[in-house]
Amino acid sequence: MPQFDENGLIPAIAQDASTGQVLMVAYMNRRALDATIKSGYATYFSRSRQKLWKKGEESGHRQKVQQILVDCDQDCLILKVTIDAGQCHVGYQSCFYRALKRKSDKELELVAKKVYDPAKTYKK
Amino acid sequence: MPQFDENGLIPAIAQDASTGQVLMVAYMNRRALDATIKSGYATYFSRSRQKLWKKGEESGHRQKVQQILVDCDQDCLILKVTIDAGQCHVGYQSCFYRALKRKSDKELELVAKKVYDPAKTYKK
Repeated sequence: MPQFDENGLIPAIAQDASTGQVLMVAYMNRRALDATIKSGYATYFSRSRQKLWKKGEESGHRQKVQQILVDCDQDCLILKVTIDAGQCHVGYQSCFYRALKRKSDKELELVAKKVYDPAKTYKK
Repeated sequence: MPQFDENGLIPAIAQDASTGQVLMVAYMNRRALDATIKSGYATYFSRSRQKLWKKGEESGHRQKVQQILVDCDQDCLILKVTIDAGQCHVGYQSCFYRALKRKSDKELELVAKKVYDPAKTYKK
């Protein structure tokens, strides 16, 4: 069974079920995991907002969960998901749109292109 | 630049650069990241042993780092790695060798086969 940490959280990696691309990493508490299993769509716990966060509730960019993998010591999850839109809130398919420049831990380079315009998606 | 948490750690996902399979998730402190960049091979910080852990130092199952990706809020890394042996200490290619059974958070099912015999690899 998934092991939640001292804050009641477990990290969850969302991975595109068809391409294998890692889309994002977020955290779940027990209620978020229950909601994910029950609804079939990824629900996380927002550490900054301290509340459940149904991925895509504002943007519409949801994650339909196909499978939930558990690692050997059961303190991390992978959600294999199907998606139909970019997943990062700044407009990229994946939150991992930058890489460390070779042999540097201080300089980043862009390795992806935006797939949607967040200004149009997140209307206040 | 990577943001280390209040314990000085950042989670790092090791992903097979050729297949996209997520192999394991571990943590790095500043010294582990520096050692990884300098050596070109994944080095983590073992939370249980509270020391640097050069992946494969005992098993020989190392991870040659091709690229290090950083996520949007810079609090998680992906190491794109090349490998030539199973990466989980219990004999599987990936630590994520089990899945939650459908609609359950209490039952796991095996979704992979062992690729090496840890009893032969980890000789005391």
